[in-house]
This record gives sequence, C-alpha cells and structure tokens, in this order.
Amino acid sequence: MSIEPLYTDEFFMKEALKEAQKAFAADEVPVGAVIVANNKVIARSHNLTEMLNDVTAHAEMQAITSAANALGGKYLQDCTLYVTLEPCVMCAGALAWAQITKIVYGAGDSKRGFSTIGENILHPKTEVVSGVMENECSEIVKTFFKTKRN
Amino acid sequence: MSIEPLYTDEFFMKEALKEAQKAFAADEVPVGAVIVANNKVIARSHNLTEMLNDVTAHAEMQAITSAANALGGKYLQDCTLYVTLEPCVMCAGALAWAQITKIVYGAGDSKRGFSTIGENILHPKTEVVSGVMENECSEIVKTFFKTKRN
Repeated sequence: MSIEPLYTDEFFMKEALKEAQKAFAADEVPVGAVIVANNKVIARSHNLTEMLNDVTAHAEMQAITSAANALGGKYLQDCTLYVTLEPCVMCAGALAWAQITKIVYGAGDSKRGFSTIGENILHPKTEVVSGVMENECSEIVKTFFKTKRN
Repeated sequence: MSIEPLYTDEFFMKEALKEAQKAFAADEVPVGAVIVANNKVIARSHNLTEMLNDVTAHAEMQAITSAANALGGKYLQDCTLYVTLEPCVMCAGALAWAQITKIVYGAGDSKRGFSTIGENILHPKTEVVSGVMENECSEIVKTFFKTKRN
C-alpha cells in the first residue's frame, strides 16, 4: 500500500484558491496566493486592488511583503509561491528581486501573464510549474467576469 | 526678453533628486521619485527596501500608491512620474497597470532597467523621456556603491 504525500502542490493550491474565493466575495478579481516554506504557509493573500484603490495590491505583491516580514529578511530563498493565476510582469519582477525558489501557478494568463513578455524576467534559478488545478483556478476568474458583464 | 518656464522637467527632477538624497542618507540605494499632476507634486518617495526589508518598496511603487491615495482613484492618467533611475521591470509593470501618462527618468539602468526587456511592458499611450539630469542622477548611485565597496 502506498501512502500519498500530504503536502502536494494541489494541497497548497487549494489554500491559494481559498484566498481567491475571499477576493471573489469582496468583488475583487479573484486571485489568491500563499507562500510556503518548509511545508508551512508563511503568507496568504488575495487581490485587493479595488479595496485599496491601488494597482500594486496584487495577491503576489502582498504575499511577498508578508513572507519577508515572517522570515525577517527580504529574500525568499527556499520558498514556494502558489498563485491561482499566472503572475503579471509587475509581480514577476518582484518575484525576481525576491529570488524566490519556486513558483507554482494554476491558470495561465495569455493577456497579462509574464510569459507573454518572456521567462527571463524571473531570477535564473527560479523553478516554474504551471497548470496545477488549472480548471478550478481558471473557472473562478471566468465566473467573475461573466457576472460583471451581466 | 524671454521668460523661462518655471515647471520644467529639470524642476521636478530636482525634487526627485532630493528624495534620492534622503535614501542615500538612510543607507538605501539612492533612488527618488515624485509624481506630478497639474504642475503639482502629489506624491514623493524614495527607496526603502532595506528599512522595510521588502523588495517591493522601490521609490516608484510607493509613489504610485501614494499618488492613487491623493487622487482617490487607482489610475494615474494626466500624471507624470519623475524618477532618478530608469524603472525596473516590476515598477514598469506597475506603471502600466496605473496607465500613467508620462515617465521621465534621469539615469539609465543597463542591468535592471525595463528597457532591457522591452518598452512594450508599458501602457501603449505612456510617453517616456530619459536622460533628464542624467549626470547628477547617475553620480549619486555611483558614489553610493563606491562607498559600499570600500
């Protein structure tokens, strides 16, 4: 009998999705993020651009600031970001400065995702995994914009 | 007799340089910024990455947040950012979200400047002017890193 590992990418992406759901409930574009170190969530956040009236208040930006506070240092080495939507250029630039070890995202963003500009925005050592719980992560954004159009 | 205009790019870049000097005095990489609307400075800031232990605390990011607060809205249309050093990819991404009308920077940054990745990071309508008080803006950064190496 094999034992399933507890702390899979799906496990932590579910935590990021819970954050996206909070954003949805607050009428924000539903993107959520968590940052994990040693299998422990050290930061969780969701998009707050409307509430804060601030284009820089993306889930990832807040997670970076919060994780740095938790660690007491500004570099996020040995940390993994889980985020429901592909980071934009701003967030990828911030993740590069933070030298984060790994980025796992759910749905791609063909309009605003950093990979539309080029993967060389990130720190060369940063590992990127995409498509984890892609359907769920994509569906919440689609549902949000569908309600906006009605 | 011709009358010199009061509110030139140099006039506001001097204000950004004053902010850079505050950063220098606080042992931060000396970059300063102001945001101007209707010839009035509505936000001023300098790099605080060391003090805040936060890679996202660039002068431009704080200026964007502060200007949005001053205006009561998150878009910086009809605003000009004056910044002593060419914005990085993160800051350029944020300026794109903010749809800022004009960016004026002093010194170029051949390592981390957004133009190393491509000007298409910015909003297509954003005007960019570079090289305003280039020597002064460059000199303060060079002097800072020279003191660090000694």
